[in-house]
Amino acid sequence: MSINSFGHLFRVTTWGESHGPALGATVDGCPPGIPLDEAAIQTFLDRRKPGQNRYTTQRREADKVEILSGVYEGQTTGTPIQLMIRNTDQRSKDYGDIAEKFRPGHADITYWQKYGIRDPRGGGRSSARETAARVAASGVARAALASLMRDLRITGYMTQMGPHATDRSRHDMDQIARNPFWCPDPVTASEWEGYLDGLRKSGSSVGAVIEVVASGVPAGLGAPVYGKLDTDLAAGMMSINAVKGVEIGEGMQAAALTGEQNADEITMGPDGPIYSSNHAGGILGGISTGQDVVVRFSVKPTSSILTPRATITRGGEATQIVTKGRHDPCVGIRAVPVGEAMMACILLDHLLLHRGQVGDGPRGRIG
Amino acid sequence: MSINSFGHLFRVTTWGESHGPALGATVDGCPPGIPLDEAAIQTFLDRRKPGQNRYTTQRREADKVEILSGVYEGQTTGTPIQLMIRNTDQRSKDYGDIAEKFRPGHADITYWQKYGIRDPRGGGRSSARETAARVAASGVARAALASLMRDLRITGYMTQMGPHATDRSRHDMDQIARNPFWCPDPVTASEWEGYLDGLRKSGSSVGAVIEVVASGVPAGLGAPVYGKLDTDLAAGMMSINAVKGVEIGEGMQAAALTGEQNADEITMGPDGPIYSSNHAGGILGGISTGQDVVVRFSVKPTSSILTPRATITRGGEATQIVTKGRHDPCVGIRAVPVGEAMMACILLDHLLLHRGQVGDGPRGRIG
Amino acid sequence: MSINSFGHLFRVTTWGESHGPALGATVDGCPPGIPLDEAAIQTFLDRRKPGQNRYTTQRREADKVEILSGVYEGQTTGTPIQLMIRNTDQRSKDYGDIAEKFRPGHADITYWQKYGIRDPRGGGRSSARETAARVAASGVARAALASLMRDLRITGYMTQMGPHATDRSRHDMDQIARNPFWCPDPVTASEWEGYLDGLRKSGSSVGAVIEVVASGVPAGLGAPVYGKLDTDLAAGMMSINAVKGVEIGEGMQAAALTGEQNADEITMGPDGPIYSSNHAGGILGGISTGQDVVVRFSVKPTSSILTPRATITRGGEATQIVTKGRHDPCVGIRAVPVGEAMMACILLDHLLLHRGQVGDGPRGRIG
Amino acid sequence: MSINSFGHLFRVTTWGESHGPALGATVDGCPPGIPLDEAAIQTFLDRRKPGQNRYTTQRREADKVEILSGVYEGQTTGTPIQLMIRNTDQRSKDYGDIAEKFRPGHADITYWQKYGIRDPRGGGRSSARETAARVAASGVARAALASLMRDLRITGYMTQMGPHATDRSRHDMDQIARNPFWCPDPVTASEWEGYLDGLRKSGSSVGAVIEVVASGVPAGLGAPVYGKLDTDLAAGMMSINAVKGVEIGEGMQAAALTGEQNADEITMGPDGPIYSSNHAGGILGGISTGQDVVVRFSVKPTSSILTPRATITRGGEATQIVTKGRHDPCVGIRAVPVGEAMMACILLDHLLLHRGQVGDGPRGRIG
Repeated sequence: MSINSFGHLFRVTTWGESHGPALGATVDGCPPGIPLDEAAIQTFLDRRKPGQNRYTTQRREADKVEILSGVYEGQTTGTPIQLMIRNTDQRSKDYGDIAEKFRPGHADITYWQKYGIRDPRGGGRSSARETAARVAASGVARAALASLMRDLRITGYMTQMGPHATDRSRHDMDQIARNPFWCPDPVTASEWEGYLDGLRKSGSSVGAVIEVVASGVPAGLGAPVYGKLDTDLAAGMMSINAVKGVEIGEGMQAAALTGEQNADEITMGPDGPIYSSNHAGGILGGISTGQDVVVRFSVKPTSSILTPRATITRGGEATQIVTKGRHDPCVGIRAVPVGEAMMACILLDHLLLHRGQVGDGPRGRIG
Repeated sequence: MSINSFGHLFRVTTWGESHGPALGATVDGCPPGIPLDEAAIQTFLDRRKPGQNRYTTQRREADKVEILSGVYEGQTTGTPIQLMIRNTDQRSKDYGDIAEKFRPGHADITYWQKYGIRDPRGGGRSSARETAARVAASGVARAALASLMRDLRITGYMTQMGPHATDRSRHDMDQIARNPFWCPDPVTASEWEGYLDGLRKSGSSVGAVIEVVASGVPAGLGAPVYGKLDTDLAAGMMSINAVKGVEIGEGMQAAALTGEQNADEITMGPDGPIYSSNHAGGILGGISTGQDVVVRFSVKPTSSILTPRATITRGGEATQIVTKGRHDPCVGIRAVPVGEAMMACILLDHLLLHRGQVGDGPRGRIG
Repeated sequence: MSINSFGHLFRVTTWGESHGPALGATVDGCPPGIPLDEAAIQTFLDRRKPGQNRYTTQRREADKVEILSGVYEGQTTGTPIQLMIRNTDQRSKDYGDIAEKFRPGHADITYWQKYGIRDPRGGGRSSARETAARVAASGVARAALASLMRDLRITGYMTQMGPHATDRSRHDMDQIARNPFWCPDPVTASEWEGYLDGLRKSGSSVGAVIEVVASGVPAGLGAPVYGKLDTDLAAGMMSINAVKGVEIGEGMQAAALTGEQNADEITMGPDGPIYSSNHAGGILGGISTGQDVVVRFSVKPTSSILTPRATITRGGEATQIVTKGRHDPCVGIRAVPVGEAMMACILLDHLLLHRGQVGDGPRGRIG
Repeated sequence: MSINSFGHLFRVTTWGESHGPALGATVDGCPPGIPLDEAAIQTFLDRRKPGQNRYTTQRREADKVEILSGVYEGQTTGTPIQLMIRNTDQRSKDYGDIAEKFRPGHADITYWQKYGIRDPRGGGRSSARETAARVAASGVARAALASLMRDLRITGYMTQMGPHATDRSRHDMDQIARNPFWCPDPVTASEWEGYLDGLRKSGSSVGAVIEVVASGVPAGLGAPVYGKLDTDLAAGMMSINAVKGVEIGEGMQAAALTGEQNADEITMGPDGPIYSSNHAGGILGGISTGQDVVVRFSVKPTSSILTPRATITRGGEATQIVTKGRHDPCVGIRAVPVGEAMMACILLDHLLLHRGQVGDGPRGRIG
């Protein structure tokens, strides 16, 4: 039981601090014989990379991944894959202020209370920089899924920024890559631009909602009752920095529905069951139905803002704090590829877990 | 890695089906020397017991717990505690209909697709009856917490039923025990009465939102980054039958806030830090702050309803299904003690995990 | 991480004390659709049952197993299987003496030092009676292996009692069932009879060496480097009460060999590689070779003897102790079916683990 | 459940191949606030380093460790510690021969059969070079133990090489560092010199027995029944390359003893119980007694020898193989610091596990 690991059989352990020499992921349990190289992983890291536009942190990191083990002549060997990313833009600066004061809404105070020591440089281990390691690990998962779950397509996007939600009738997945917000609604995307510029200039920040959809997931994945697919997705998404809520399908809105409204009626299609709707988000009883797996999570606004906030020092004295320097006005933007990464890792893990216990593929035939 | 277990050091494995001879929980890792008897556990089971009023299933189960191991002369010995509950009211009835047809919104179809076999009697392993085992296990956790976290108080209640939410300005925790809904708002509670009677008579069902608050939790619990306290709470609550969303503190609403709004400002109190608000829900960076830990989850409406729904048979033929017999119009009601149970087990687990790695209590002093 | 569990995917948690109401095993991760009933499990329990001849404890236990969950209409469902064995012959007697004094060579003192409480009745959790739960669990493993590893044959036997070892040139596996010692050498078996009668009458006890051989194990099982097949076998056998040494193949004698002597030369047979010898015990680099898997372990003499031994009381006062009542003069006898049980559980676990990561069967073809 | 990890709370995951760019250990769960730097870890690595005398492999590796995370200003922070060792002496050579042929007694064939791919360069993941990562991880464990188990002293040494065993009456721990064999018996050490020179010159190899003793271990460590201290030690030692047998205390010889001989009688000393002997090897019922913890393991001769051995190619054709190049005539020599390393890691892990469940120190008082 490692507290910095997730996954049952496809097991990812991340390590590293924001301003240490490097960070990375130790990936254990990958199937052998999977084609893999650094370029394939880099693709995913580049989607998450900081400094790509004016809405994300201006830290300049190449986020260049190195494979240190587990791959031989371009294929995985079944042994642990070590992925390392060197930190290059750790500005030498004075951390005196945030080393002595606790930022409200930040993990500064709890790391101190728990461990009695903390690395204040850039948030140390509690920095969102840790998510680069998850994204790197997901590059391995994606390579394996390319062989093992051929129809899989994972799509992440932002559906709300601050009080401004997208209009689902305008959602067009081709739009996601055409704006800096991963927004599927082009009208909302252009509204967000002005809104976020305003927040950025005033040194403020705002929260967001991210949705990640996986299509092409076979029925039968998920291990009831404490290794359910939705249980692991909830844990996976909640473990991402700044996430405060996770929903599957209807999510919190399921509370408002009656049984009649919530029932996804079933008919028989040419290749198996077809559903009239997907309130369930593709998961029933913790097991995938074959429909799209739909997960949503909220990201709180970053605590690094220019408006002074009341706080205390380590010595217990009242003071105020202002966080200067580079930061993301909406950390939710960079959480999109991270949510996709967690989805990929968890789906592969459940595929391996399923074939371990049950054998290949879904087992009970219908029709 | 057991898929029917949760917890790192305080480890609970549940077993049993709705209509098998018995169900229960194997509880491993409990500290030794904790006073424990069946009566203490029974108190918690009785809160969850079916058939207590007209709003919950009319199945009559004594839910009588037996301690089969791990306790000697009224104290835990540090060895596994086996808790068994005999099933007594498994009506001998014909399950032909639900054995052959899949209920929309129910795990019938996914268990079949995964395993190629399923126990159709009362939902088998996917029945909410499994939660009795969690509640029994929580009785052990509560006994240990009585010694190890003396100020702890866990309070669960319902804040929404269907479209009807409580008014937080009227919340009064003393009201919770005075209505059949665990509702802290007496005005809303009486509205729910008529609303749920209507649903019950028409054979319909409805969803709900449950909130569980733990006060008296010391700062420093939670193991970043994949054993975070909120990560484990999210997993724990999502693993409960019919749960579709989990929130910590502001939850999904955190998306709408700015950094200024979300900051819980800090001042120094006589016994440590004091916060101006609790948007964080008592957890920062996955570690408890010492404030109330606030978790919320949604429960979808049960799929067992009297209105016919389109579905298919195992043979793939189109048909309709109506679920007769006893069921809960709002399963959320009985989810309240289950949510409290998960909170208790997870808090104890994190206390043990913390003292394993760090030693007793929070470590970094302030002031 | 449960400390009373073993196995990665086929996960067994045992519970229960020697003189509590019951003991048993919670078996999680079993493949679905495996034919299973109580009679199949009982066969294995009966081999281990106490009181079958004058050389094992005279405690009279039916060791009747009940399946409480996880089986529906004679087949496993993929959900946890709870196996319970009621204790029936817990003699009401005065444990005053061994409750106050520590038996030299027994876990009395360490359980006390660790937990500050111990169940002195029959040794509580440290009793060899715990092994009945392992044997019951192995009945489930055997049922699954009957489908998944059809050529498997597991044979356990005793090769040494006290200073008297068998002569390997006389080993005949058909002899094992024909004497009360599971001895494959009929000459030695008859010598042991007189030797053990003498020890039994004088209230003494003696150690033993057990060998367990599994033939029909496919090549490719074992997960380097900390889930190696030999690593898990070493842990599994060492976890049996009274075991003090574990060997694979040549075991401790491998130290005396040169590289030339130790090399199992390879030639090509009709169905794959053939080896000139089996010094490796069927495992290279932690992975099965397809040869017989050969494990050996020593069992120390039971500490319950009639000769007085110097010890101390809980209060720290010098005293002497004599253990009256029923006991085994050679606990190694009943360890034979226990060793076979561990072998079965571990082989199934590794089969599932292998197909989880790699897919079905060995993967690299030769020839 | 990572298959390349060991430990419950102090969790070590090793990664890397013999001839890849680097190898290392991800160490999770270390207590915070422990003074640690690279020099402290290097001390242990230097003891294991190849090429230190003519009896170990002539590969020249600096084995220079880098700490990439988890340490801030010279102290552990409680977050994962990544230890990396660059491989520097990977000779560019032709692996054609061993890439195509399987060495008898080597993991070549089983890695191939399991994974269908293997890294043949220097044995890839199955190389003894993996043990450098364990030794590095033990440097972290030692640093924590220096605070948490102050009286601990771990001593490893060789007691047998080929057929030549030491004479225990001549054992003198001060001799261990004075010969290249970690031999406590100076007479035997000088005999081994000639013996091993002969083997080395003829390109042969030989096995060995290593003993590791830990004194100063408090009573109460070990988690029955599947996380016993001896269970974890057996697994830990068996997971080391080439180990074929593990013994605790009397080990396999316990079989030959009677209950009277095996009883370690107890008297009361000034600081607690005192034992007349230590047949138990410091562990009863899986829990430490406070006596010396004594573990012994055998190491088989390396399979790399100059005498041709019959084998087959990947294509299944009969051939012969000779292993040229640098290798260890007695790999047991370098296994001594590795055995010490496993002891250190396992003892720290059990200390944390104990204080997680039970609190600090042994609990039941005597006297």
